Amino acid sequence: MYDKAEIFIRQMHDELEFEQAVTEQRLLAIKEEIKKTGSYHHTAEELEYGTRVAWRNSNRCIGRLFWDKLKVIDKRDISDCVSFEEAVTSHIVEATNSGKIRPTITIFPQATAHEVPFIILNDQLIRYASDPLAEPIRQLVPKIENRFLPIVYRHKGEMHRFSLPDNIVLEVPLIHPDYPDFSKLNLSWYAVPFISGMELRIGGITYPCAPFNGWYMESEIASRNLLDCYRYNLIEEIADSFHFDRSKTATYWRDKTLVELNYAVYHSYKSQGVAIVDHYTASKQFEKFEQQELQSGRKVTGDWTWLIPPISPSLVHNFHKGYDNTYHDPNFYYRKKGCPFSGQRTN
Amino acid sequence: MYDKAEIFIRQMHDELEFEQAVTEQRLLAIKEEIKKTGSYHHTAEELEYGTRVAWRNSNRCIGRLFWDKLKVIDKRDISDCVSFEEAVTSHIVEATNSGKIRPTITIFPQATAHEVPFIILNDQLIRYASDPLAEPIRQLVPKIENRFLPIVYRHKGEMHRFSLPDNIVLEVPLIHPDYPDFSKLNLSWYAVPFISGMELRIGGITYPCAPFNGWYMESEIASRNLLDCYRYNLIEEIADSFHFDRSKTATYWRDKTLVELNYAVYHSYKSQGVAIVDHYTASKQFEKFEQQELQSGRKVTGDWTWLIPPISPSLVHNFHKGYDNTYHDPNFYYRKKGCPFSGQRTN
Repeated sequence: MYDKAEIFIRQMHDELEFEQAVTEQRLLAIKEEIKKTGSYHHTAEELEYGTRVAWRNSNRCIGRLFWDKLKVIDKRDISDCVSFEEAVTSHIVEATNSGKIRPTITIFPQATAHEVPFIILNDQLIRYASDPLAEPIRQLVPKIENRFLPIVYRHKGEMHRFSLPDNIVLEVPLIHPDYPDFSKLNLSWYAVPFISGMELRIGGITYPCAPFNGWYMESEIASRNLLDCYRYNLIEEIADSFHFDRSKTATYWRDKTLVELNYAVYHSYKSQGVAIVDHYTASKQFEKFEQQELQSGRKVTGDWTWLIPPISPSLVHNFHKGYDNTYHDPNFYYRKKGCPFSGQRTN
Repeated sequence: MYDKAEIFIRQMHDELEFEQAVTEQRLLAIKEEIKKTGSYHHTAEELEYGTRVAWRNSNRCIGRLFWDKLKVIDKRDISDCVSFEEAVTSHIVEATNSGKIRPTITIFPQATAHEVPFIILNDQLIRYASDPLAEPIRQLVPKIENRFLPIVYRHKGEMHRFSLPDNIVLEVPLIHPDYPDFSKLNLSWYAVPFISGMELRIGGITYPCAPFNGWYMESEIASRNLLDCYRYNLIEEIADSFHFDRSKTATYWRDKTLVELNYAVYHSYKSQGVAIVDHYTASKQFEKFEQQELQSGRKVTGDWTWLIPPISPSLVHNFHKGYDNTYHDPNFYYRKKGCPFSGQRTN
C-alpha cells in the first residue's frame, strides 16, 4: 500500500508543484500511519485531486475535458444509514440542479481490511424498473411499485434499500419537432446518469462507494438505451412514428431512425433546459482534452471501442486514431462483486 | 518451415477428412522437398484450400460467409512481365464480370530465400490518381496522365509499371433518386476493390503477390472514401447538394448526409447491376458465418474495430460482442515493405 501511496503522492505534488520537503514530510506521515493502523487516509486536497485525476484517467470517457471541474463531496465520515441515504439523495438533487447539471462525486468511507462500510448494488442511482438492465436489482427486490428502482445498498453486512422520492428525479419527455407521432409515443428519459457501480482507487486506497455523474451524450440514450436489442429495443415503433418505410433494409429506415432519434433526444433535453452534449461536439471536446494533456506533458490513454460514438463514428477524429488502453491509477473500476454490469464492448 | 507446413497439412487433411495414411505420405514428401530444396510447393488443392482458409481467418473482414466460394487462380508458373500483366488484367476483367462480381484471387510465385519474384506496390489494383491514398504511388510515378494509377510492381529487383486500359475499369456514377443536385456533383466510384498490398501466408510459404477482391460494402465508399477528412473529405459539398442546413452541428446535417450518401451509393450500384452489400445485411451475413463456424467446431477470430460498420454501428450484432483478435495461419498480412498502408484503426 505504501508503494502505491508514494507513487500517487509524488505525482500529485509534482503536478501541483509542491516543495520537495512537503512531499517527504507527507510521505513520512503516511508511512507512520500505515505502520500504526495498516492503512492511511487522504487529506481533503488529496481526495479532491485524486478523484479528479481518476476521471482524467478514465479511458472509456469522452467527457474528460472537464476533469478538473468535478465537484468532490467528502462524506467519508458517514457511518449510519440515515445519513447515507440523505447524502445520496442530496447528491441527486444538487447535481441535477434543475437541469443545469453539475459533474459531482460523493465519496463515502474507504474500505478497510475488515469491512466495506457502504456499497451500492445498483449500477446507476436512477434507473427505470422497466429497463432490462434493472433485472439484477429486481431479483433482489421482489415487489417494486415505483417507476424507478429503489437504491439497494449493503452496510455492515446488512442489505438495505430506500426509494427515491419521485419528485427529485428530473425527467425529459422526448419530442421531435418535425414528427408529431413520435411525441405521441410518450417516451421520456431521466436527466442525469449517476454511475454507482464502480469503485474509486487512489494511491492504494479503495473507495467502494463513490457515486458520480456527468451529463448525457445524446447517443447514450438514443442509440443505446432506447434501441439496443437487449435494452428497450424500440427501433420499429420509433421508425413507424417517423413513418419510415420498413418494408426492406434498403430504405435505410434503421439508419434514418437512429439519426432522427438522436436529434429528438438532443433537442428535447436542450429545449427543456437540461444539459446534454451531442456526439460530434463531445468528440471535439475530447480532441481539446487530448491537446491540453499533450501540452501538460501527459499521455492520454483511452479505450477506442468506447470513445467512438455509436452513431456516424467515422465522422469524428477519435475513430481514426489509436489509443493506448493502459489503465493508470487513480481510476474507476467495475467492482468484481456487487455490480452485475461490466462494459459491453471488449476486444 | 516444416513445422508450419505440418500444422497446415494436418488441419487441412483433418477438415477435409483425408485418410491418415495420405496425410503421413504428404508430410513425408514435404519433409523430403524441404530437405532437398530448402522449401516446398503446395499442390493445387492445398493452394485453394489454404487460400480460402486465409480468407476465413481474416479478422478484419465482415464478408467471410463466402470464404469457400473464393475463386483461386493459380499463376505460380509465371516468370515474365508480359504474362504477369496479362494475368493481372485478366483478374480485373474476370472478377468484375460486368458487375456480377466474383470474389477472386490470383496467386503469383511464392517467395524464396533468394528472391521475391513479383510484388505489387499499389495497395489496390484500381485507385484514382486523385485519391490522397495515391500519394505513395504518385511519388514513384512522376507523371500520371490516366485517371487511374498505373500498377507499379517489382520483378527481379527491377521496377516496372503498366497502365490499365480505361475500358476494363467498371465505374458507377453516383446518383440519389430523391436529390437531383447530388447527382449533378458527378461523383463516381469504381465497381471492385482489388486488394494488392497484402501477402498470403500458408503453411510456412509466403505468396508476396496475391491480389484478391470481393465486392464493396456501401459504407467503405460512402462513409470512408468520400467523407474521411484525409480522403476525399466531401461532406460539406455533399450536404449542400442535399440542401441540409449546415449552420450548426445541432441540425445533425453530418449524420443525415452520411445516411443519404450510403443510400445513394447502395442504390447507384444496385440500379446499375453492380454487386454491393449494405452494412446491415453484411453484418447479418457475418452472424451466419459465426453460426456456421460454431457448428463446424471452429472459433471465429475477429477485429472488433474493423468489423463494426462506420455507420450506425450499435444497430448490428457485432457491436455488442467481443472478438478474439488472434491471427491464425493461413492468413493475409500487410507487407512490411512495399505497401505504404496498414490499417487505419488500431487499439
